[in-house]
Amino acid sequence: MKGCKYGTHRVINENVLPQPAIKVNNDMNIYDNEVLINVSALNIDSASFTQIEEECNHDIEKIKSKILEIVNEKGKMQNPVTGSGGMLIGTIEEIGSELVDKIDLKVGDKVATLVSLSLTPLRIDEIIDIKPDIDRVEIKGKAILFESGIYAKLPKDMEENLALAALDVAGAPAQTQKLVKEGDSVLVLGAAGKSGMLCCYEARKKAGRKGRVIGLVIDDNQAQCLIENKLVDVAIIGDAKNPNDVLQKVLRVNKGKEVDLCINCVNVTNTEMSSILPVKDNGCVYFFSMATAFTKAALGAEGVGKDVTMIIGNGYTKGHAEVTLNALKESENLRKIFKNLYV
Amino acid sequence: MKGCKYGTHRVINENVLPQPAIKVNNDMNIYDNEVLINVSALNIDSASFTQIEEECNHDIEKIKSKILEIVNEKGKMQNPVTGSGGMLIGTIEEIGSELVDKIDLKVGDKVATLVSLSLTPLRIDEIIDIKPDIDRVEIKGKAILFESGIYAKLPKDMEENLALAALDVAGAPAQTQKLVKEGDSVLVLGAAGKSGMLCCYEARKKAGRKGRVIGLVIDDNQAQCLIENKLVDVAIIGDAKNPNDVLQKVLRVNKGKEVDLCINCVNVTNTEMSSILPVKDNGCVYFFSMATAFTKAALGAEGVGKDVTMIIGNGYTKGHAEVTLNALKESENLRKIFKNLYV
Repeated sequence: MKGCKYGTHRVINENVLPQPAIKVNNDMNIYDNEVLINVSALNIDSASFTQIEEECNHDIEKIKSKILEIVNEKGKMQNPVTGSGGMLIGTIEEIGSELVDKIDLKVGDKVATLVSLSLTPLRIDEIIDIKPDIDRVEIKGKAILFESGIYAKLPKDMEENLALAALDVAGAPAQTQKLVKEGDSVLVLGAAGKSGMLCCYEARKKAGRKGRVIGLVIDDNQAQCLIENKLVDVAIIGDAKNPNDVLQKVLRVNKGKEVDLCINCVNVTNTEMSSILPVKDNGCVYFFSMATAFTKAALGAEGVGKDVTMIIGNGYTKGHAEVTLNALKESENLRKIFKNLYV
Repeated sequence: MKGCKYGTHRVINENVLPQPAIKVNNDMNIYDNEVLINVSALNIDSASFTQIEEECNHDIEKIKSKILEIVNEKGKMQNPVTGSGGMLIGTIEEIGSELVDKIDLKVGDKVATLVSLSLTPLRIDEIIDIKPDIDRVEIKGKAILFESGIYAKLPKDMEENLALAALDVAGAPAQTQKLVKEGDSVLVLGAAGKSGMLCCYEARKKAGRKGRVIGLVIDDNQAQCLIENKLVDVAIIGDAKNPNDVLQKVLRVNKGKEVDLCINCVNVTNTEMSSILPVKDNGCVYFFSMATAFTKAALGAEGVGKDVTMIIGNGYTKGHAEVTLNALKESENLRKIFKNLYV
């Protein structure tokens, strides 16, 4: 039997797509246009993992229970507070008859799914381990990929965990590559985070010598790391929740001028105004942070009379997996940091 | 003396922007980059006015006292319960020396401020009258417009209330004018609402004869109204919460093709996917609806593998007041509908 390409046939009792659905059917008998994955690990979205960690007072057992509770209730790993998901890694176990010759996958291939866990039917049989420093949950379980679902085969010339860590945020650097033009000044909030560093790297490559990439970080260690590894031209230390302070610090390192583009990669709330204020009129703010509040951005920009284009970070853009894996292949610095922090 | 362009110099005892500030300084001696307005009326935000009315048991004298109490305490008319403000009407009394030649205002001009009262320093000398049916408070008083504050000169050839009704949603049609190109197919969700009709009008003007403006509405009356008044090329009737249905209906009236641009003006939740699914790859979705959820849009597009640019509707864009008032001046149809519904 063939299901809807977007997976609506698995939504329970609602006429919506799987992502906004309260609950999806996680029965692991696949439809003819679905793919069954034997899951080995979940990479939880950073905003989601942080929220769960805080709710559970950083207690690993409580975090485990919370994750199981969510998946048992919703049939998918979608944080009920943040709405966000993450991605998974696994091996192809079965390919529906309709897809066998249409996709470049075969049984046994190791893949990372690039659609969010927030819409992916998932069953967890056992949580083996949780690695809170890398938002990773190792499990035994199964998941379903819909016909429209995007994925990346994991490269053989790169450690799996390294590829996975980067693919998790592939949309951000690929969009950065599209948005930044030669000579641009670019502010990256949350520059020392995973997506932040990749964005800095791509921004610097595109902005070139005449451009300036400014990374906002929370402490001196992060600032030094970014500078030493040539990921930014300037690092500034500050609180992304304090727009006046961020604005003043940006002006100080950018010849008194507002920047052309701001990329928000921060994983906490209330950073909208710090992204909007430092950008010049007709500039652009790219919100990749899943903690962004739509109304705070929309009304905030109006309140200060800023004519800036504000873009909602789309996790997908054509070629995003390649852009991101290439960054890691090209840059030894980036590779080293990623191995250190996320593998 | 020059103040901060965003008005932080008037915030008392906090390091925040004027809007979240508890209290602002409403001393009416202006800084060199401020404008002094002789205020004739406040248009209180509907949520705020309703709250005050209920708290005061609809007693006009009590409402007067409450408004005076708020402004005396906070230096601005920001409802302490709802957090919202509204807008004001007045005439320009003084322009700071730094701004005299930089802005298109002169002393005596009649203006409406387009920044919220929730951040505007205000002093009320006397409340003359309260008109509860239109949330209007007629006063003697003064207010300050910051350098970043936006405003519209009120046209002399248009009823004041008609202008105010349209200025309320000025961001949407002005952005539409920027985004639509000749020959584009444009889908407007919520096409029969206030911002929807203005967007349809601007989209049709820009897309031209080769373009196609498709309005989604909820019933036949609305569809007929849009067609009769030549605001759309095609009207489709459907539920903006049902993306599959919307997609099928759009394809049916657009030669089987997805549209170039979708503008969301719906005032209910869960319409993100109906905005994303009908748009072609590399197309654009403009979310003007304040009911948009950031994560639903971001993860939703990724979930269906759609490479579309999603823009957060900024209430402000340069020239937005002019674009909107011009639409009403140009179109007798639009003017008639607005007078009927909103004045």
